Amino acid sequence: MTIAAELAARIDALRYEDLPSEAIRWAKVGILDTIGVTLAGSSDPSARIVNGVLAAAAGPSLIFGTGRRVNVLDAALINGTASHALDFDDCNNTLGGHPSAPILPALFALAEQTGASGREFIAAYVAGFETECKISLGVNFYQYTRGWHPTTTIGVFGAAAACAKLLRLTDEQTATALSIATSLAAGVKSNFGTMVKPLHVGHCARSGLFAALLARDGYTASPIAFEHKQGYFEVFNGAGNYDAAKILPAWGRPWDIVEPGIAIKQYPCCGSTHPAIDAMLMLVRRHDLRPEQVERIDSWTHKRRLEHTNRPDPQSTFDAKFSVQYCLARALAARKVAIEHFESDAYKDAGIRELMARIHAVPYTTAQFPADNHFGAEVKIALRDGTVHAQKVDQPLGRTSANPLPPELLKEKFVNCALRVLPESNAVKLHAAIEKFEQLRDVRELTMLIELEPHRESAARTVAGVCA
Amino acid sequence: MTIAAELAARIDALRYEDLPSEAIRWAKVGILDTIGVTLAGSSDPSARIVNGVLAAAAGPSLIFGTGRRVNVLDAALINGTASHALDFDDCNNTLGGHPSAPILPALFALAEQTGASGREFIAAYVAGFETECKISLGVNFYQYTRGWHPTTTIGVFGAAAACAKLLRLTDEQTATALSIATSLAAGVKSNFGTMVKPLHVGHCARSGLFAALLARDGYTASPIAFEHKQGYFEVFNGAGNYDAAKILPAWGRPWDIVEPGIAIKQYPCCGSTHPAIDAMLMLVRRHDLRPEQVERIDSWTHKRRLEHTNRPDPQSTFDAKFSVQYCLARALAARKVAIEHFESDAYKDAGIRELMARIHAVPYTTAQFPADNHFGAEVKIALRDGTVHAQKVDQPLGRTSANPLPPELLKEKFVNCALRVLPESNAVKLHAAIEKFEQLRDVRELTMLIELEPHRESAARTVAGVCA
Repeated sequence: MTIAAELAARIDALRYEDLPSEAIRWAKVGILDTIGVTLAGSSDPSARIVNGVLAAAAGPSLIFGTGRRVNVLDAALINGTASHALDFDDCNNTLGGHPSAPILPALFALAEQTGASGREFIAAYVAGFETECKISLGVNFYQYTRGWHPTTTIGVFGAAAACAKLLRLTDEQTATALSIATSLAAGVKSNFGTMVKPLHVGHCARSGLFAALLARDGYTASPIAFEHKQGYFEVFNGAGNYDAAKILPAWGRPWDIVEPGIAIKQYPCCGSTHPAIDAMLMLVRRHDLRPEQVERIDSWTHKRRLEHTNRPDPQSTFDAKFSVQYCLARALAARKVAIEHFESDAYKDAGIRELMARIHAVPYTTAQFPADNHFGAEVKIALRDGTVHAQKVDQPLGRTSANPLPPELLKEKFVNCALRVLPESNAVKLHAAIEKFEQLRDVRELTMLIELEPHRESAARTVAGVCA
Repeated sequence: MTIAAELAARIDALRYEDLPSEAIRWAKVGILDTIGVTLAGSSDPSARIVNGVLAAAAGPSLIFGTGRRVNVLDAALINGTASHALDFDDCNNTLGGHPSAPILPALFALAEQTGASGREFIAAYVAGFETECKISLGVNFYQYTRGWHPTTTIGVFGAAAACAKLLRLTDEQTATALSIATSLAAGVKSNFGTMVKPLHVGHCARSGLFAALLARDGYTASPIAFEHKQGYFEVFNGAGNYDAAKILPAWGRPWDIVEPGIAIKQYPCCGSTHPAIDAMLMLVRRHDLRPEQVERIDSWTHKRRLEHTNRPDPQSTFDAKFSVQYCLARALAARKVAIEHFESDAYKDAGIRELMARIHAVPYTTAQFPADNHFGAEVKIALRDGTVHAQKVDQPLGRTSANPLPPELLKEKFVNCALRVLPESNAVKLHAAIEKFEQLRDVRELTMLIELEPHRESAARTVAGVCA
């Protein structure tokens, strides 16, 4: 059997009833967090411009942050872009990227057409999550290092698998959907720090859904699209840079959504800046530091992560999200790193710029962290009075299921995000509904709570207009 | 200046009035041929299934082969898939693929919205053609050999450039469109021989147009998306496998649409089978050969081309288009290779299968053709009476502008294609209108001739239904 067929058989065999309760609990965390960040991102220009260009046809699927419903593919594209617009969505260490944003916008768009139950939805989500993560075992982190964007070049299989499952495709059709997806996989890292990064995710969510719909309707694709000598493995990775044998035996052992699990981002900026922010906030709070006391700050990040976060002079909001210097300056000055720090002209703030000039970012050495730890950071602050404070973190809070964000912080983040679009009563109702997601007879009972009333939508547009 | 900015400046500077008459003449050949094959391909399942899945919103842009008009992006996707559905569209030796199918469906969709003139349209087409071909000088044939589908992984820049020009974007916006396109480039060769190959083209036409529309509306992308160390060149090709310095100096020297120019396919199957078909038809006609006389056939093709055309036992219509054995058997039996040979169950024909068993396909050696000729073929036919006939061709007829298909064969192909959808009077009027394309005040005067009347459309659907 081919890789696509083997994966398809596993996707088909997965049953909600057989999932461990931890998988269901984490699926609900992923759904909660992704809905929150998608609402918060819905007014971002990266999503609004896509929405404008598409001029989408009316259909069953809600554009989050609005009261408008459009066709499934355009909804997946618009909401997928919104879900990653703030770079605030969840992460997974196996994928080396964002596991839920490629999947959930496609699944919500589709579920609103099919009227799926909460349990069907969760099973499809876990299947997509597992597919992309287990493929990652075979092809990453080579892809990341080379310059692919694994969130989308691998996440497209998560989206295709999840949609195939929700559509109840046959094994053969599901395998075809995965094979079609090899030809739609896209996204290069040179566009990180621009609107194209979230576009990757929207495009990927649409592509995975598109692949599943085409397979349903009889499209043909190569059964060996992955392992062919001019197939996905050889073309994206090349000989010696992948190991397909790692993919299948790891399926469900454990479920990737449980271990290493879903990492929740506390800060709306690139995850590679987070351990340093954690370290900075610990120092600032512990020693009650104020910017004017600080002489010099040294920051150490993993070499691979510093490559895209060493931006001492960010020239845009997006750029700022990938600037460890900017994020550390904000953490020192505001004692938090929040959405408003990445809006409008915030990145030009003169006080912050002055502070950034004192920050020196370099890669860490194996004297500081073990060679296999790429989630660590160290921050050292030298004060004008000669005092030096230093803090190391091995990984940011929330990075794995072993080091989870506590429920109250999860809820706080969700409500903060949702309130940027929804009235408070809806945000709270929505939170409660997601907590009981597996009890939904029809996912549309939940999306109704997300739908904006017309007067509220125009207010949200005004806010977005002012911010952008 | 960056590659994207340099290209954008050249795209912007290109004026219809400055183009040599040969460029305009060849542009009209490309437009004629692409309209023909798109009409012929419009009833192919690869395009019809895409059309069904999209459920596109009404808009300005015609779906070729129907009377329905939809939004620009969906029209580009559907017509782009149709344009390559039969693998019958034009080729270019610099691109190492199909230059017009990624561009023209996007341009037609857009021109029907903007109401462009024939001259504006031609200038945009030549700009897109030149962009993709000159980028190819830097990155191909490595991409082809590795397993990318250059028609789309490079053609996406042709589509983006052409649409940017038709939209009259600023230099900066055009550069952004090209940078966005680096993140949408996709297509692996393992899916050759399936419906996904034409899907690549439709997806690419849509992606190029999408990139241009996003750039127009203020999307941001990296100015160094090509030359960044994790950008298009390094990620798709990798160090040592590209030479960006070859791209810019070659711009317009000569225009690629003039030299090597547009290769027109005489046969509706993979171009890599064409020189062998030419050789076979020469032998069959010259010696009045009949299948029952033939003991054994030997066929030599370039190694790289044989890789995807060595299919002694094709299992589908698509497979048959990539089977040099099947194509040669048809050429011997029918003295032509025609669209109907790749429809329905034609590939299962018992007589043809029996003939295929006598055909032996191998790569040629440098004793047969110079090392740099990958367009050659030799066919040797041993008859049962002991006679042996052999024929070499250096390149198929129509392969370059130096060896063009004569106008009467061009027209014959066009009319044959168009008649599969249009009534004869329209096909002839359409041919005449394309001959005067540069005189069109509005391209919609021409697309009106392509639009099917409702009763005709239902008849075309019936035919397609019977065929599929």
